Amino acid sequence: MRYAVLGTGEVGRTLGGKLVELGHEVSLGSRTKDNPAAVEWADSAGPGAGHGTFAEAAAFGEVVLNAVGGRVALTVLQTAGAENLDGKVVLDVSNPIAFEDGQVRLSPVESDSVGEQIQRTFPHARVVKSLNTINCYLMVDPALVPGEHQIFVSGEDQSAKEQVTALLGEFGWPSHRVLDLGGIRTARATEMYLPLWLTLMQNVGHPEFNVEIRRAR
Amino acid sequence: MRYAVLGTGEVGRTLGGKLVELGHEVSLGSRTKDNPAAVEWADSAGPGAGHGTFAEAAAFGEVVLNAVGGRVALTVLQTAGAENLDGKVVLDVSNPIAFEDGQVRLSPVESDSVGEQIQRTFPHARVVKSLNTINCYLMVDPALVPGEHQIFVSGEDQSAKEQVTALLGEFGWPSHRVLDLGGIRTARATEMYLPLWLTLMQNVGHPEFNVEIRRAR
Repeated sequence: MRYAVLGTGEVGRTLGGKLVELGHEVSLGSRTKDNPAAVEWADSAGPGAGHGTFAEAAAFGEVVLNAVGGRVALTVLQTAGAENLDGKVVLDVSNPIAFEDGQVRLSPVESDSVGEQIQRTFPHARVVKSLNTINCYLMVDPALVPGEHQIFVSGEDQSAKEQVTALLGEFGWPSHRVLDLGGIRTARATEMYLPLWLTLMQNVGHPEFNVEIRRAR
Repeated sequence: MRYAVLGTGEVGRTLGGKLVELGHEVSLGSRTKDNPAAVEWADSAGPGAGHGTFAEAAAFGEVVLNAVGGRVALTVLQTAGAENLDGKVVLDVSNPIAFEDGQVRLSPVESDSVGEQIQRTFPHARVVKSLNTINCYLMVDPALVPGEHQIFVSGEDQSAKEQVTALLGEFGWPSHRVLDLGGIRTARATEMYLPLWLTLMQNVGHPEFNVEIRRAR
């Protein structure tokens, strides 16, 4: 499968690297054509690894992963071009966080989410929100953390969620640990979990943790 | 110990009932002196159970539990009277949720929390936020749900958090499952978890669940 991974940060490079390792072709998208981080990644990640502008990457991918920060996601996807997203699964793993005066802030929050913004702005894309509740190393290697901890998918398109669940399976997530929360509006809930995740990271002392939902029955 | 439990809803009656069962004296506080729910509860809960206005209950309690909704917490505590809270541990278990057009809304959110509001408004109270991430039946009976699932405490006063942790121990929570998140500002994080909790409740099908933090090391 051909994947576009938008974003050359740690999240994008980690997801892209795992996809290449799995035998997929990946174009790592960035603002500029010869972003040094993208060039270096493409040179070292393996034979399936390439890079390009956001638009070139999105045009290349059959599936598009949004791995830029949630606050710039819309701008980046607009640069990538609606015509390069139409009909495609767009997997959004972002969170709209920023640090202001040392405090975490979320925007949008509570009455909207990045997942919803993307789906509204690109009505022909098949947006799925997932993986935004964990660290990127855990995204592609769930066995880093013991236990039956889970991840979530949110989206309007059932077949898109199934396709993402299959991809998550390739990453190592058995389907029973992928919880379908419902429509894209439920992205609000997982994005609003981030302040607790950040607080727990302080408590745990590192980012390699996740929650396992335990239930009475 | 003498406890004030402010609020005659399911949460207040459940917490109050458990405290009486544990041998404590409880005054269940409400807006009016002869609230039928409070009278009925006091008649049936056991010998340690009483009731009164918010102010009477708060004056009675050595520890004050806020079990009214987060959106009315400040008003209720003002009615209870700052003089009846000064120097006392105030355990706030509330969340500032309301449903508008079938959607959950939180207020305050993100830049403030009920826990912080209470601490700011009553600087001489020793406010601890806890238990707001789970259903009230689980609050007082953690064994309802299997596993090493956890709860959180937030607050400025270390000895108040220790006192609450001891109370949680009486409820059945071993101290290693009570995670100290830090100052009262971290109440923002646990209050913002509520939309995810509500979404998970839809997925699980009932409210008797909790999260267990699993970690790489």
